[in-house]
Amino acid sequence: MDNRPIGIFDSGVGGLSAVRALMRRCPQESIVYLGDEARMPYGTRNRETILRYAREDLAFVLRHDVKAVLVACGTVSATALEDLRRECPVPILGVVDPAAAEAVAATRNGKIAVLGTAATIRSGAFPRAIAKLCPQAEVLGVPCPMFVPLVENGYIKPGDPAATLFAREYLEPVRAFGADVIILGCTHFPVLKATIGALVPQTVLIDTAKSAVAALEAALLKKGLCAGESGESSQFYFVTGGKEGFEGVAERFLGERFDGEVEVVTLS
Amino acid sequence: MDNRPIGIFDSGVGGLSAVRALMRRCPQESIVYLGDEARMPYGTRNRETILRYAREDLAFVLRHDVKAVLVACGTVSATALEDLRRECPVPILGVVDPAAAEAVAATRNGKIAVLGTAATIRSGAFPRAIAKLCPQAEVLGVPCPMFVPLVENGYIKPGDPAATLFAREYLEPVRAFGADVIILGCTHFPVLKATIGALVPQTVLIDTAKSAVAALEAALLKKGLCAGESGESSQFYFVTGGKEGFEGVAERFLGERFDGEVEVVTLS
Repeated sequence: MDNRPIGIFDSGVGGLSAVRALMRRCPQESIVYLGDEARMPYGTRNRETILRYAREDLAFVLRHDVKAVLVACGTVSATALEDLRRECPVPILGVVDPAAAEAVAATRNGKIAVLGTAATIRSGAFPRAIAKLCPQAEVLGVPCPMFVPLVENGYIKPGDPAATLFAREYLEPVRAFGADVIILGCTHFPVLKATIGALVPQTVLIDTAKSAVAALEAALLKKGLCAGESGESSQFYFVTGGKEGFEGVAERFLGERFDGEVEVVTLS
Repeated sequence: MDNRPIGIFDSGVGGLSAVRALMRRCPQESIVYLGDEARMPYGTRNRETILRYAREDLAFVLRHDVKAVLVACGTVSATALEDLRRECPVPILGVVDPAAAEAVAATRNGKIAVLGTAATIRSGAFPRAIAKLCPQAEVLGVPCPMFVPLVENGYIKPGDPAATLFAREYLEPVRAFGADVIILGCTHFPVLKATIGALVPQTVLIDTAKSAVAALEAALLKKGLCAGESGESSQFYFVTGGKEGFEGVAERFLGERFDGEVEVVTLS
């Protein structure tokens, strides 16, 4: 039993979908969240810069005595996780491998689609992770650049006309390809799950944040690191950008009135 | 007569609407363009950081022996232009004051709407510039956060359904307010001018890039700095982000097949 918090970091607010998933699945766990909005988006930086930012983010959450780290940033998970793993004294997970494993387990016809940011699709991280588990699976990556701005600007009601318009466009190649499983390969996208799901009711949608949290729970159980059931859990949010903008968007992700403690910090 | 180039800089690609306007209005003028995509968006940074970035951008274009500088970045124009002006040895203009002057000249009922990014609207730069020229004018600022991603992802055909959906939403308060002049207060927005204009046919739309170029031409004429009519003009583009992404988006702004020379550079 270990009541230390879990560290979660992201380049911005997207990682809050992992916070939401963790609070629902393991309500006894405390959380230290870092959202590095001042330097987002990571996806447009080169690999060296991403690694440097990721190391600073990791060092920050480690200073808060965390027992495990969830890298809730697709870009960092896709490009820098192996380096971080070598340097991290506690268990560390990303959002790519757990979702890939769940997709491989769920597909019946071996056709998996990945919806992601342009950077994530270009990185090829999901096809690589899937190929390691199931070389014969076919993977179609679809860049969905409008989904992040839609979520960040509040077009999130199930069936929202604007979100539906773009979802229809992005799902067209997915239908033509015949995927029976779709990975929502960006931590912003679960916020649009109902809108997307309504257009492809026969398809399994995989939420990378939920998959990662399930894998994290399994890792904690295995190592005897779970928090006690009776303990009081806490959530601390550190942001490098503005506090107000963060709180507004946090409600969209957490699906309830946000009343977490938020502190603005500067990373070296 | 002066055949040295004009320096134009922006935090990304938006300033290309100023390049387009300048190439059409003054085809004999050569251009050195800097798009600092690696550090965009500027709008989310604090004032000190914006000023530091702007100084580095300015120093870069000045090293290319320019005879005048157009700051095609709304954020820099709104927050750092006075500092830059004190430090710049050649004439320097932004995109706020010329558009404000044109709006004041065009309005009949004294009601001016400004469409901009959230950061530009929050800065209050347009209302301030308008108030200096015409204290009794009423100004309504409308943040339009979806327009930039729409333009950058190609939803730019006149009457595009997605762009129309958002334009309708953003123009609703403008109609209720009764503005007879709308400033397209972001250098991305002129790309959507036809889509926006179709929804408000009785309203004058002011393109900040065109206004700024007209003011620039006036300044060059006044100081005898115009290029010779017979000279060969050239355009050089420097970008701090990726070359390919830039070229793709450049076509959307310049409205033709882009064949400019692009070089990737690093700013300290």
